[in-house]
Amino acid sequence: MGVNTFICVSALIGLAWALLNFAIIQKTTLKGGGGPSSALQGLVGGLGKVEGIHATIELGAKSFLKAEYSICVAFLLCFAVLLLVLTSLGSTLEDGFYTTIAFLVGGFTSILSGLVGMMVAVNANARTTVAAASEPPSKLTAAFAVAFRAGAVMGHALCGMGILTLLVLLLAYKSVRFSDPGSWNLMMDCVAGFGLGGSSVAMFGRVGGGIYTKAADVGADLVGKVVHGLEEDDPKNPATIADNVGDNVGDVAGMGSDLFGSFAESTCAALVIGTTSKDLLDAGWAAVLFPVTISAAGVLVCLACSFIATDLKPVGGSSDVEPALKVQLISTTALVIPAILALAFILLPASFEMHSVVTDTITVSWYGAATCAVGGAIGGLLIGLVTEYYTSHSYTPVRECAYACKQGAAVNLIYGLALGYKSAIIPVFALALIVYVAFALADLYGVALAALGMLSTLATGLTIDGYGPVTDNAGGIAEMAQLPETVREKTDCLDAAGNTTAAIGKGFAIGSAALVSLALYGAFVVRLGITEGVNVLTPLTFAALMVGANLPFWFSAMTMKSVGLAAAEMVKEVERQFKENPSLLDPTSDALPDYDKCIQISTTASLREMIAPAALVMLSPLVAGTLFGVKAVFGILTGGLVSGVQMAISMSNSGGAWDNCKKYIAGAFDADPELRKKDEHGRSTPVHQAAVTGDTVGDPFKDTSGPALNILMKLMAILSLVFAQYFQSINNGKGLFNVH
Amino acid sequence: MGVNTFICVSALIGLAWALLNFAIIQKTTLKGGGGPSSALQGLVGGLGKVEGIHATIELGAKSFLKAEYSICVAFLLCFAVLLLVLTSLGSTLEDGFYTTIAFLVGGFTSILSGLVGMMVAVNANARTTVAAASEPPSKLTAAFAVAFRAGAVMGHALCGMGILTLLVLLLAYKSVRFSDPGSWNLMMDCVAGFGLGGSSVAMFGRVGGGIYTKAADVGADLVGKVVHGLEEDDPKNPATIADNVGDNVGDVAGMGSDLFGSFAESTCAALVIGTTSKDLLDAGWAAVLFPVTISAAGVLVCLACSFIATDLKPVGGSSDVEPALKVQLISTTALVIPAILALAFILLPASFEMHSVVTDTITVSWYGAATCAVGGAIGGLLIGLVTEYYTSHSYTPVRECAYACKQGAAVNLIYGLALGYKSAIIPVFALALIVYVAFALADLYGVALAALGMLSTLATGLTIDGYGPVTDNAGGIAEMAQLPETVREKTDCLDAAGNTTAAIGKGFAIGSAALVSLALYGAFVVRLGITEGVNVLTPLTFAALMVGANLPFWFSAMTMKSVGLAAAEMVKEVERQFKENPSLLDPTSDALPDYDKCIQISTTASLREMIAPAALVMLSPLVAGTLFGVKAVFGILTGGLVSGVQMAISMSNSGGAWDNCKKYIAGAFDADPELRKKDEHGRSTPVHQAAVTGDTVGDPFKDTSGPALNILMKLMAILSLVFAQYFQSINNGKGLFNVH
Repeated sequence: MGVNTFICVSALIGLAWALLNFAIIQKTTLKGGGGPSSALQGLVGGLGKVEGIHATIELGAKSFLKAEYSICVAFLLCFAVLLLVLTSLGSTLEDGFYTTIAFLVGGFTSILSGLVGMMVAVNANARTTVAAASEPPSKLTAAFAVAFRAGAVMGHALCGMGILTLLVLLLAYKSVRFSDPGSWNLMMDCVAGFGLGGSSVAMFGRVGGGIYTKAADVGADLVGKVVHGLEEDDPKNPATIADNVGDNVGDVAGMGSDLFGSFAESTCAALVIGTTSKDLLDAGWAAVLFPVTISAAGVLVCLACSFIATDLKPVGGSSDVEPALKVQLISTTALVIPAILALAFILLPASFEMHSVVTDTITVSWYGAATCAVGGAIGGLLIGLVTEYYTSHSYTPVRECAYACKQGAAVNLIYGLALGYKSAIIPVFALALIVYVAFALADLYGVALAALGMLSTLATGLTIDGYGPVTDNAGGIAEMAQLPETVREKTDCLDAAGNTTAAIGKGFAIGSAALVSLALYGAFVVRLGITEGVNVLTPLTFAALMVGANLPFWFSAMTMKSVGLAAAEMVKEVERQFKENPSLLDPTSDALPDYDKCIQISTTASLREMIAPAALVMLSPLVAGTLFGVKAVFGILTGGLVSGVQMAISMSNSGGAWDNCKKYIAGAFDADPELRKKDEHGRSTPVHQAAVTGDTVGDPFKDTSGPALNILMKLMAILSLVFAQYFQSINNGKGLFNVH
Repeated sequence: MGVNTFICVSALIGLAWALLNFAIIQKTTLKGGGGPSSALQGLVGGLGKVEGIHATIELGAKSFLKAEYSICVAFLLCFAVLLLVLTSLGSTLEDGFYTTIAFLVGGFTSILSGLVGMMVAVNANARTTVAAASEPPSKLTAAFAVAFRAGAVMGHALCGMGILTLLVLLLAYKSVRFSDPGSWNLMMDCVAGFGLGGSSVAMFGRVGGGIYTKAADVGADLVGKVVHGLEEDDPKNPATIADNVGDNVGDVAGMGSDLFGSFAESTCAALVIGTTSKDLLDAGWAAVLFPVTISAAGVLVCLACSFIATDLKPVGGSSDVEPALKVQLISTTALVIPAILALAFILLPASFEMHSVVTDTITVSWYGAATCAVGGAIGGLLIGLVTEYYTSHSYTPVRECAYACKQGAAVNLIYGLALGYKSAIIPVFALALIVYVAFALADLYGVALAALGMLSTLATGLTIDGYGPVTDNAGGIAEMAQLPETVREKTDCLDAAGNTTAAIGKGFAIGSAALVSLALYGAFVVRLGITEGVNVLTPLTFAALMVGANLPFWFSAMTMKSVGLAAAEMVKEVERQFKENPSLLDPTSDALPDYDKCIQISTTASLREMIAPAALVMLSPLVAGTLFGVKAVFGILTGGLVSGVQMAISMSNSGGAWDNCKKYIAGAFDADPELRKKDEHGRSTPVHQAAVTGDTVGDPFKDTSGPALNILMKLMAILSLVFAQYFQSINNGKGLFNVH
């Protein structure tokens, strides 16, 4: 009872905190700031424009999400039928029914997460601009607070919602059908559908949103910056609004769904594996729910730490922004560790036996289990800091790229690719160490706990992740509303810090995804009742292993190409508008382009292009399991995981580094206007162009392919887990071809 | 006895054929072609320059190889001591001694292979130019014949030498110590050192040569083409000669060592695994040597088929070149199949039992064994044809990249990266199918035979591989000697076909490397006496698996960065020369740059930068096995193989595609001079520049990192095999940390 209350109250506090922050944000009105500040005088015309731009972005984002989620709902309903049929085939109709309900609940919660994130972000972007305009030039306090609070709304709302929905689902299932502890393992198997639903929607969200945002961004950069020498977010560029809409639907809504999926899956993995331990079941409901309490405690810790940024040490000038965000990550990790230890001590038995895939049984102590989760939390922070080192322009790697730009785009690209590959080394070693320790201490349960530990600071991670696109949009709005240069400088400063922290957030997401998918993979093996482990030196498994390791490459090929295609369509449209309306390129003219056409292009292209990659990920394990049996699925999961994690990290970091390399060079130019001189076509210097080329290549790396690979890993694993009984039912797990 | 004679005679015929072709090449004298052709009139001044340029290239190549091989010899001697100590620790001093001798023989044969290839190539390049100059404008017969024969010398000399050396080693060991068939398995374990030696030198050759050639190439392109608008190989560019030297030391010597290593390793793998079968041992020496006879028969088949290109259907005009090379690949594969079947029927017992890592024992039929090898041969051809599709500008993928160049370098890069990822799909599925079939038919012996089957047409593969750099150099010499435009056009045409076929050769090399390393990995497992397979779901193995999958990324990071660094040094030097000697950029001036300085830079940089990546590859399994035991080595090998093969294919093909994309655009420009107009800085159009940027990024992809990943896979596996007993001797295979 106590544990239910604790989880429920934590989730509600999270939601209330989100509401409170939302209310605070809304206090900054778009009509002209919080008060009659003198700095606002003279901007009234510009601020009037802000509201219009804000409304256009909001409309674009809403209409895209409406279209995208219509497809998702249709998919959820169709897939629910398939799921019901196949899981019922493998088990009973009743089990299939419960799994399907959980799937639908997970899917719709994920959609809701994306919507909430988008709503907050589009509400806060213009308000950040207004706040930036209403303060003296060197002060960032109010603007930072608005953007940060917007992130906090998203982080806490999403975590609170996820935890609460899961708890309600668990309690409902428990009271309706699974009151006997002996049936809880089966219950958790059904609840795993929750993770599957969350992750499926996340796949569409990440890929669709990722293609949308990058088609617009790449397209806008290609014609605007490179050919016609326009500034970023110049209102003359027809693709600008689409680019800003993209930030909201890709980097906010897509990412929100993604991380909600991670939370749902890692919790499901821990619950499924945990309930195979008779000792844990005997210890009662509280012990079983220990994994959920980690997330619940995390919400409270993140809430407490957020006061550091908003009240205890509010941001003053530009140098405070990056440290303020970093303090959030470090402080939440530091505080969550004692919380995890305390929860493990209170809720878990002193020691308990578990099934082990390695040694048959393993005895786990409460502190062993806690160590796994703590290891995950520390590992996440380490991965985050390494990511920062490789993607922030405060350190050598990005600066080397920047100097390489002097030798042209090609050397910048060679350096950036090498940087990405290299940046995977320490995270992969850290993950390997975490896997080894967790596996040795508590078998697969330990791996699942490590994933939960890494995600325990999720609310903060999401806060920072959400903060980035809000400030990015704020800058875009400032530029488009033609507010004074100082406003744009402020938002740029907020945005640069957001870039690095976004990369850190991606590091967390990828690391936890790798752990989650290993845990789910293990749960799949356990569920099949396989005790001899997974022998890769068998014909079928090794062949499938090679195919599995190919999937991240195949998937990236699809998503990269899609961005390229969609961007090319965008370029054509922009060029058409410039040609038909030459006054757009005349700096003295007031003519505005047709933004809607570009929004339409991004929408159509992303909805069209998101289907194939999503199908690849979902069909691969399903087809492999149906035709060739579980040994093939083992190979696919192993291969997808080990090559996916490298690809995801290196792509995200290459992209982040190129982006900040460009910003570093732009900064150097600002300091020395001579460097910034343009040639007779209005194009900037070759060095800057080399950096822009790198950034453009990096766009689909870091915001489309890279982060979507997370979902590839997780989704294939949870899908296999949910369909385990179905696979097993075909020729005793040997598939329709009955191969061995 | 008969089998020894067959192998020996085949090898000697191969060597004799190489000598004969060499003699034919030498008939084209550098003093002015084969005869007093009228076309040569008026070129005497230009042809005089040819000799000087040829001598400079030869000098540069020789001095680099001398420096590189001095390091290799030092390495071989030091590593021989380590090998002797460690293998003696694991086994007896005598076994260690025999292994070490085989290692040294393999290493020195590999060095010899590289030297022979380089000598032939530098001799033939200028002669190809002269031959091209001595024929009427539209005729390519003589020039093609010289370049093709140069490749044939290399292919047949290398195969003949490899087979002969191995046979002598086997017969010597057999007569000195291993006369009893019961000891042959031990003998083959010692002979595996031959493969290790070959592969270690290949690693240095590929990486060192790869960095050399690409530092020069990238450096030359960056300043010459992009900034100053010089043509490729313009004699005014100080890095030109270094670029041409690089073709000989990287694409010829490095590649020769690489493929010699593949041959040596796959043969060793088959011999080691084959001799674990009591039935095969009972069937006698001929049955045991069956794998070697496949290679021997391949030499004869390739020799016979080469008449098609030189005599039966000699190349007339430009459209004949690519088909002529493709016919070689298809005809040799078609002819080698009956040869394999015949040899298997004659030499192998009707059926024989083998140890199986899957089912304990497996019964293999002669046609089952033959099917594996045939499958490998056909699979190789399929991979080759897919590679052609993705890298030749006759097909859609490269043309899409070319059209993408209109939208700038970034879109070209996005498309090219996606193309590379995508191009791995079919080859990986083909390899997976081959692995599955071979594994099912003849367990690991089948996998080794499949690798040998794929390499059975090695002499032809090497012919085509060697042909490419020779024609590339010929073009460079024509440009530098300022011969008429028509000569350059001819060599360009020969070179374009060589580009695609080089990619095909890389496809073969990568595919066979994947199979070889799986076979070696299996042999390692067998040698350790492990019967329960390799369970990846254990803490140590899974952790090591993640680390292993990271190694190809780490390795690529190092090699890419090295090329970037060395190219930057080159750029500085070239800019320095342009600055200090402005007459170099004056088209009317006769001033020539200081080529030697650039050669020195490439030499120093490549020798310095090749150490770390080579150490990474060799130390990883050695350290893992010593500290953490064989379970960690299993993970490293599995991970390295499955992610390495994807990376290798996609990098090679992206690079090949960008190169041909650039050539396609240049061709379109030649057809329409309007497109080729330059801006006021003498730079070519933005479209062409976008293509050059792609090509420059692709250079280290396709000639440094990509192909070296082959060796990474193979070398780690053979190293583990050779050190198997040593690993086993430390805490019974659990390593110094005695972990489980």
